[in-house]
Amino acid sequence: MAGNSYGTLYKVTTFGESHGEALGGIIDGCPSGIQLDLEAIEVEMSRRKPGQSAIVTQRKEPDAVQFLSGIFEGKTTGTPIGFIIPNTNQKSDDYSHIKDNYRPSHADYVYDQKYGFRDYRGGGRSSARETASRVVAGAIAKQMLPEIKINAYVSSVGPIHLDTPYQELDFSKIESNPVRCPDEKSAAIMEEYIRDIRKQGDTVGGVVSCVIQNVPVGLGEPVFDKLHAELGKAMLSINAVKGFEYGSGFLGSEMKGSEHNDLYNPDGTTKTNLSGGIQGGISNGMDIYFRVAFKPVATIMQTQDSLDNKGNITPMTGKGRHDPCVVPRAVPIVEAMAAIVLADFYLINKTY
Amino acid sequence: MAGNSYGTLYKVTTFGESHGEALGGIIDGCPSGIQLDLEAIEVEMSRRKPGQSAIVTQRKEPDAVQFLSGIFEGKTTGTPIGFIIPNTNQKSDDYSHIKDNYRPSHADYVYDQKYGFRDYRGGGRSSARETASRVVAGAIAKQMLPEIKINAYVSSVGPIHLDTPYQELDFSKIESNPVRCPDEKSAAIMEEYIRDIRKQGDTVGGVVSCVIQNVPVGLGEPVFDKLHAELGKAMLSINAVKGFEYGSGFLGSEMKGSEHNDLYNPDGTTKTNLSGGIQGGISNGMDIYFRVAFKPVATIMQTQDSLDNKGNITPMTGKGRHDPCVVPRAVPIVEAMAAIVLADFYLINKTY
Amino acid sequence: MAGNSYGTLYKVTTFGESHGEALGGIIDGCPSGIQLDLEAIEVEMSRRKPGQSAIVTQRKEPDAVQFLSGIFEGKTTGTPIGFIIPNTNQKSDDYSHIKDNYRPSHADYVYDQKYGFRDYRGGGRSSARETASRVVAGAIAKQMLPEIKINAYVSSVGPIHLDTPYQELDFSKIESNPVRCPDEKSAAIMEEYIRDIRKQGDTVGGVVSCVIQNVPVGLGEPVFDKLHAELGKAMLSINAVKGFEYGSGFLGSEMKGSEHNDLYNPDGTTKTNLSGGIQGGISNGMDIYFRVAFKPVATIMQTQDSLDNKGNITPMTGKGRHDPCVVPRAVPIVEAMAAIVLADFYLINKTY
Amino acid sequence: MAGNSYGTLYKVTTFGESHGEALGGIIDGCPSGIQLDLEAIEVEMSRRKPGQSAIVTQRKEPDAVQFLSGIFEGKTTGTPIGFIIPNTNQKSDDYSHIKDNYRPSHADYVYDQKYGFRDYRGGGRSSARETASRVVAGAIAKQMLPEIKINAYVSSVGPIHLDTPYQELDFSKIESNPVRCPDEKSAAIMEEYIRDIRKQGDTVGGVVSCVIQNVPVGLGEPVFDKLHAELGKAMLSINAVKGFEYGSGFLGSEMKGSEHNDLYNPDGTTKTNLSGGIQGGISNGMDIYFRVAFKPVATIMQTQDSLDNKGNITPMTGKGRHDPCVVPRAVPIVEAMAAIVLADFYLINKTY
Repeated sequence: MAGNSYGTLYKVTTFGESHGEALGGIIDGCPSGIQLDLEAIEVEMSRRKPGQSAIVTQRKEPDAVQFLSGIFEGKTTGTPIGFIIPNTNQKSDDYSHIKDNYRPSHADYVYDQKYGFRDYRGGGRSSARETASRVVAGAIAKQMLPEIKINAYVSSVGPIHLDTPYQELDFSKIESNPVRCPDEKSAAIMEEYIRDIRKQGDTVGGVVSCVIQNVPVGLGEPVFDKLHAELGKAMLSINAVKGFEYGSGFLGSEMKGSEHNDLYNPDGTTKTNLSGGIQGGISNGMDIYFRVAFKPVATIMQTQDSLDNKGNITPMTGKGRHDPCVVPRAVPIVEAMAAIVLADFYLINKTY
Repeated sequence: MAGNSYGTLYKVTTFGESHGEALGGIIDGCPSGIQLDLEAIEVEMSRRKPGQSAIVTQRKEPDAVQFLSGIFEGKTTGTPIGFIIPNTNQKSDDYSHIKDNYRPSHADYVYDQKYGFRDYRGGGRSSARETASRVVAGAIAKQMLPEIKINAYVSSVGPIHLDTPYQELDFSKIESNPVRCPDEKSAAIMEEYIRDIRKQGDTVGGVVSCVIQNVPVGLGEPVFDKLHAELGKAMLSINAVKGFEYGSGFLGSEMKGSEHNDLYNPDGTTKTNLSGGIQGGISNGMDIYFRVAFKPVATIMQTQDSLDNKGNITPMTGKGRHDPCVVPRAVPIVEAMAAIVLADFYLINKTY
Repeated sequence: MAGNSYGTLYKVTTFGESHGEALGGIIDGCPSGIQLDLEAIEVEMSRRKPGQSAIVTQRKEPDAVQFLSGIFEGKTTGTPIGFIIPNTNQKSDDYSHIKDNYRPSHADYVYDQKYGFRDYRGGGRSSARETASRVVAGAIAKQMLPEIKINAYVSSVGPIHLDTPYQELDFSKIESNPVRCPDEKSAAIMEEYIRDIRKQGDTVGGVVSCVIQNVPVGLGEPVFDKLHAELGKAMLSINAVKGFEYGSGFLGSEMKGSEHNDLYNPDGTTKTNLSGGIQGGISNGMDIYFRVAFKPVATIMQTQDSLDNKGNITPMTGKGRHDPCVVPRAVPIVEAMAAIVLADFYLINKTY
Repeated sequence: MAGNSYGTLYKVTTFGESHGEALGGIIDGCPSGIQLDLEAIEVEMSRRKPGQSAIVTQRKEPDAVQFLSGIFEGKTTGTPIGFIIPNTNQKSDDYSHIKDNYRPSHADYVYDQKYGFRDYRGGGRSSARETASRVVAGAIAKQMLPEIKINAYVSSVGPIHLDTPYQELDFSKIESNPVRCPDEKSAAIMEEYIRDIRKQGDTVGGVVSCVIQNVPVGLGEPVFDKLHAELGKAMLSINAVKGFEYGSGFLGSEMKGSEHNDLYNPDGTTKTNLSGGIQGGISNGMDIYFRVAFKPVATIMQTQDSLDNKGNITPMTGKGRHDPCVVPRAVPIVEAMAAIVLADFYLINKTY
């Protein structure tokens, strides 16, 4: 029960540490006969990888995924899809300074407490590098559900918010700037803010919004495995996520029922969609939308006190990579996890 | 995969419709030898039940739980604990008016779409009455983990917020008022607000905050089953929940890393706790705290348009129970789900 | 993980001790819209219950099942089906003599070792009475798969074997005699043998054979969850089972490939069926058949040495019920478990 | 639910086709801090691999396992252990003759029916080559449980049986002959028999017996996940297995209770052990022993009729590898699956 699998019928299991030989995973339950577009998978991988622009981390990760099974003559066979992503940059010496030290707000301390010791290189298993495997699984899930459109984008960086309703945004602009914000003016301000944060050697958080369109009615299970409960878990499982809300979200808690209820059109659609496309845990065919809050990553280039494994407080300065704002890179990860959740419920729904 | 189970090692499965003969469930995996305090279970049940005061619904639900197995001479035996909660009030005629009608923002429509038909009486399986079974399972989980203290309370009702940090609150006051807000002044304002909402025949949402203390270091699994991801899923599985945030939450997304990082004390505790007691998905021994947003319930006493199963829009007025604000009643449910999640991870952690 | 659930998509969880207030279970995942024949369920229950004839145990168990949820207007709703079977005969004093004693070849000793103590009345959770809940779940699974025919029968009692190939048997005769052997001559000899065993105060084992017809091609998953592996597990989970073989079974291990291979007909059927209807773990449309070996039950009416919980060997004589041969009563249980396994794979197969 | 995982807490997921780029798997749940003996793992791998002697298949499979994660400085870290076993011999043309043909008693036909098409090279996913990954997982499970001794051996080949009770055998002789039969005389006869079968271009089945010693009391869960039920499923999931029996097995079904009951010694051990070390599904500390029946493998070097995918019957002669008796090679696989099952229950038992 070490928690490295997600899903029931579209089941993704991942392995790999930041500086081990390779990351990878197994997708079990992908139906047979899907003609895979491998290039589209590489596009998703490249969206996630660091070093894409001046505002994000400079580490070079080629992130070439190698499929080892489950695909024959370009199509999925229905058997498990095994894949690896070699770690080409495994210089362990970079991390010797944290071998015996617990960085503030990192997982170093709890890993040592839970497991007795840890692979300290680059954060080991707790590194966000693990999400590369999720992006592979999500890219395949997207191809399994071609009619469903999943669009995530950055809606805030630190104190800078894009408050425009998603209906007024042009999703085709998301990839046109390094911040992945579809509103160009906001994007420019966010980018400048991040540059400033970078100069300070600091980091900043933000929010990713996600909109899912063309979802059939009926996905999601009542009671414990509600569609939004699984989406929430999937998002909260991404590194640095602190909050999740869907539909009216926290603001909805301030509303009255007479304001919040979504009245029906004769065709079963609703005039408003404060419900966020989900009623009683089950998709109702309207757009699903949600927001995911990311804290600033803990690795900063300033000097901060750390704890060593003998109980001494010692100052430490961040070394190596500096990623002042991971939120743009989180966009494809949010989409990937959404796709995995939908693929799973799509298969479950076939059993009714 | 109908989604009626929660947990891996402390596994809770529930059954039952609002107006069926009985609700109930099975708790599988509760260790043997726990001397159960049945009265404490009844106290939790009575905290959840409607009709406790003028501001909540008036329906009488005795909610007497009958244990059928897994307990011998007052102690758990390690075998599954089966229990039922008879529905003593099954007047079906109350609900004939919704037989062919889909109420706005209820699960009526999606149930019919997903399952082909539904038990329309009182919302059937989608009714929050199902949470009575969760409260039973949570009450036993609490007794399994006597050292861990779980305190939930109402921190906002509609637009009225209690912003006092939890450290300054006296949790012993939570049960002293019908709103379950530990700050008496705020409680009085909230209560008056709810009375006003009741008069309007309307409903209102709110926020439940929860604080968990004395959690050992090490609970939670890395990657997909992070402690906060499971807590989030558990909370989002409660009826009417629209959002979840823990530690710094959505506000944390506006902060800088240099502000957000929690610096260590020599004993491994931290000077601040913006992390909310969880690092990398694993408890670090500090207080765990989170907030859960509830939308206003959909059943209002005003007239609203509904959809019938022939595609006609027809006005409908809520009948029967009126629960202007379910948020106080959600407090024991939030605690129950938190206890279930912790019990599960507590058992998982024993396998390392 | 206390092991009280079976199945993934058609998931059965049971609870209950022999002498607790009630047994019962939850069936989660049964599709909606199945018109249930409750009388047919009662027939299965009555096939399992003791006291049906002179050769089996005399205890009266009415075994009336009460459905509490998941059924509305006679049809399954797709929500979990909760049910209980009250224990009407709970005279605890009958079992005080085994409170501190471990009967040979019973689970008394291991339960005390594993759980620290046990509900000693009537074997508690280890009693075969638990299988009543399985029969309920199996009866519903049978109704879910009306085209599939499952016929089990007794093919040996102690040293008396019915060696006639199943193709030459008339399954309609199975219920015509208390031994549940479709060959009347063999049945008579077996019955006499059991009467003799009863007089000796002894017990005897036997074999149940099962034939499943009209199974669609494609049920079963490759690798770990092969159809016959799940059937094997399901059968081995029935009390007193010591062995399972399918198709050619143990005899097949003595054969040559040239003899054992099943040659095809042009329509994909095979001329022989030593494979037992399963190739590579997946049903091939031919008849599935298997054999299940039951040891003699441990409770005999003779005096045998037992162990008490202080380490003393003390003679003990069986009291109360005497069931000289449970094998006929195991017939409906074998069918029930087969039906549950098939229902689960049937649903899984819909996801391809 | 494509069935490529085994276990709950020690969870093994495998991937890979016979002639894909690589096989591999993920072991999730292995506790941290186990100093791995990689050489011992290679020894297990070499025991499984073909081409070890004249009586088995001649294919060269180096089967070098590469560990990619979960191990740091020689010890398990508690994070998932990912590994691959490259397929160095991927000559696809060898198998073009079976592209459109279904070989008798192979999985070709059912795979095409279930999945729509298949990777036909070398049997694809249905090849026993998949068991290489199981041997890796089993070898690590063995190291996790150093005190438990698992010894499997060949107890029959075709009609030649070794009937000596295991207590009288010298397990250290198992590896001293290519048949893996600890009795040298029987081994010689079996070997000669297999040579003869090879000359005939035929194959033959056999039985593997397995003895597990030093198992602590308490492993196994009551009801559905009985220890022997999981062992049975694990064994039946191995290619070509047709039957499983433990303890007294099928012979036990012919016995009387008075003969079969195992009387206690004062220390809780039993004078006899017809129960096979398991009571009520839970280990009682006595030796666990069971037998696994293997049919002859279907690939023979004689000409047999096959079916093509257009419904034509066409004669086909086996090509390439000829493995007249896989039973000796199955010995390490039986041990591996037993180790995996025990590791899983060992971890589960820690949660009580």
